Amino acid sequence: MKQSQLFIKTLKEAPKDEQSINAKLLIRGGFVDKLTAGVYSYLPLGVRVIRNVERIVREEMNQIGGQEVVLPALHPEENWRMTKRDKEEIMFKLKGANKKEYVLGWTHEEVVTPLAGKFIKSYKDLPVYLYQIQTKFRNELRAKSGLLRGREFSMKDLYSFHADEKDLNLFYEKVKKAYFKIFKRCGLKDKTFLTLADGGAFSKYSHEFQTLSESGEDEIYLCDKCKIAINKEIIKQEKNRCPICRKKKLVIEKSIETGNIFSLKTRFSEPFNLSFKDEKEQEKIVFMGCYGIGISRLMGTIIEAYHDERGIIWPQEIAPFDIHLIPIGRVKKEAEKLYHDLQKEGNQVLYDDRDKSAGEKLTDADLIGIPLRMVISEKSLQKRCIETKKRDEKKVKFKKYNR
Amino acid sequence: MKQSQLFIKTLKEAPKDEQSINAKLLIRGGFVDKLTAGVYSYLPLGVRVIRNVERIVREEMNQIGGQEVVLPALHPEENWRMTKRDKEEIMFKLKGANKKEYVLGWTHEEVVTPLAGKFIKSYKDLPVYLYQIQTKFRNELRAKSGLLRGREFSMKDLYSFHADEKDLNLFYEKVKKAYFKIFKRCGLKDKTFLTLADGGAFSKYSHEFQTLSESGEDEIYLCDKCKIAINKEIIKQEKNRCPICRKKKLVIEKSIETGNIFSLKTRFSEPFNLSFKDEKEQEKIVFMGCYGIGISRLMGTIIEAYHDERGIIWPQEIAPFDIHLIPIGRVKKEAEKLYHDLQKEGNQVLYDDRDKSAGEKLTDADLIGIPLRMVISEKSLQKRCIETKKRDEKKVKFKKYNR
Repeated sequence: MKQSQLFIKTLKEAPKDEQSINAKLLIRGGFVDKLTAGVYSYLPLGVRVIRNVERIVREEMNQIGGQEVVLPALHPEENWRMTKRDKEEIMFKLKGANKKEYVLGWTHEEVVTPLAGKFIKSYKDLPVYLYQIQTKFRNELRAKSGLLRGREFSMKDLYSFHADEKDLNLFYEKVKKAYFKIFKRCGLKDKTFLTLADGGAFSKYSHEFQTLSESGEDEIYLCDKCKIAINKEIIKQEKNRCPICRKKKLVIEKSIETGNIFSLKTRFSEPFNLSFKDEKEQEKIVFMGCYGIGISRLMGTIIEAYHDERGIIWPQEIAPFDIHLIPIGRVKKEAEKLYHDLQKEGNQVLYDDRDKSAGEKLTDADLIGIPLRMVISEKSLQKRCIETKKRDEKKVKFKKYNR
Repeated sequence: MKQSQLFIKTLKEAPKDEQSINAKLLIRGGFVDKLTAGVYSYLPLGVRVIRNVERIVREEMNQIGGQEVVLPALHPEENWRMTKRDKEEIMFKLKGANKKEYVLGWTHEEVVTPLAGKFIKSYKDLPVYLYQIQTKFRNELRAKSGLLRGREFSMKDLYSFHADEKDLNLFYEKVKKAYFKIFKRCGLKDKTFLTLADGGAFSKYSHEFQTLSESGEDEIYLCDKCKIAINKEIIKQEKNRCPICRKKKLVIEKSIETGNIFSLKTRFSEPFNLSFKDEKEQEKIVFMGCYGIGISRLMGTIIEAYHDERGIIWPQEIAPFDIHLIPIGRVKKEAEKLYHDLQKEGNQVLYDDRDKSAGEKLTDADLIGIPLRMVISEKSLQKRCIETKKRDEKKVKFKKYNR
């Protein structure tokens, strides 16, 4: 894409009301715009990034047999009364012209469980794995962490339905692996820890995926022996010991909760009476699991993890473009040819055809953070080469180029 | 995909509370599920269909230079006060824990105009065309037409920004053409009419795209001479005459408003003070247009247009799969091979591997409405052929097949 045609305007300064690194860089780079606290518009560059995150998550969910659905945001409040979650402060509530009371969805057990009940009748209908990538709403009192905690945000939520607990546990382990694949493809694997968290009334533990970050709102306790982390709630219960090896010397780190998986067992199938007939025609209750990943939060976390003082450093699979092509000086003809050639080779190229100084172009390139920068200039052409630089390296390389 | 793995259960009878053909068939076929009046969940088959509609719309918007954004659903009410539209009954309103008042977006002029103002400073930044495919909310008193009128629905809205009215008019005509391409690809071209509608305070006319349908809530007046339609509001103003040729004999038809385009001129740029510096450094106001297509409504309209007493008849580009492969009798091995061969050839295949009678499978195939049905049976294999039938034709054909 030609940069002159792109709806983007980079800013030297971040807006004063933004405190988080991710929001500052995303706004300065023209990826998002803040409409109001905790509510962001995604601009064309930001849409390209979020689509990449979505694609990765979608592929890994399909890989483990997930089927994509899209559930509504507008829920009848009565569904939430059935699970006794209608008093949660985190929900936006509203009333329709038809006098009906609605809740804006921040999670979807209250919708997906009765839905599954219409389709699951027999053991032959199980297991089922349904996921969606959808907009969620949370009535946060405060929202100051950019994409890390929004009032409106994008999330992937997967719900699984099983004939028994054993089958649920097997799938739960599969999702763990799929999640680590997602974090790997997003460049976050080394910084992301499976973390023991409270399992609520039905399980001893649930699991969070916590990504180390100075800007995280959470604190986790790392046990090097067990290669696991423990969240604050559990560590208090366990009196500062690793609940597995009982070791006491744990490393405290700040982190962002980028995913969570939860063995719901029958917490939601019971109130909605979600049951099935087994092989012996006996009516049995369905076991459920739920598994979340914040899509927009993941985008924010990636920036918290990958940036420097000059801007964002996108991991390859997340980057809005593969190559940022920058002509300097009178090289328009050669640059246009290179632009077309690179695209023909299958690269996504952002071509900075703007009438700006070399300094401005290079500063913007660093801010936007595309993995590979290619500079074509009169000087480089005299040497029959172009200058390439990876965003995450300091060294400039020269690549032979015959026009 | 193997049908035994698909999250789908067809119904013989439509739910009693559904009146519209589109909702009845979509629910019976397992494409959608009703959560509450005017609010539907999209199931895996339905997601495949709506993604096809989205893809067509996206391609045609990109073709005319549109850039994709995603704007929030949660708007600060103050933005709506600035345009004096904060009293519209069609809006859902809600209050945050932070005491802030919000509106759920049913259109996005109040968001996109101030956003554009941050990026448009000079004539060099114009024109700009921003579109999104996003979930909208309308506080409808009644909702009984399935996907034709929802409280929560998916829409494509495009907003254009221009230096002057002439440029706006040129783009307006481009969008008209792009819309007809979309309707053509959705199989609706012959039934869709450009329709004169009221232009509000700023233009004499706006234009609707009305698709003929018995179940439509609208009425249009067709003029064969001008090959145009006129909506009810305009026809009243014009005393039942065509406003162009003054002809009085017009044909009345029921129709669904599937799209609309509107020359906003300065209706929204004025309250948000959206201006730019022209070549002479003079501050000038920006001219705007807006252009909508209901994505979910289009899906519903296609069914209203293409169905028979047995089920849906999807147009090729919209269909959830290209081929519905149905084995009858003991032909599992041959059917599986054919399933893989057809996929290798690039077809999207739904393979009915369920343990059901021939009658049930064929009835379901007619209901689901995939364009091409292929039946492989012991009988057909003896003749070294498979039986093919197009959903929109009566005739069964035989195709040579060597296992």
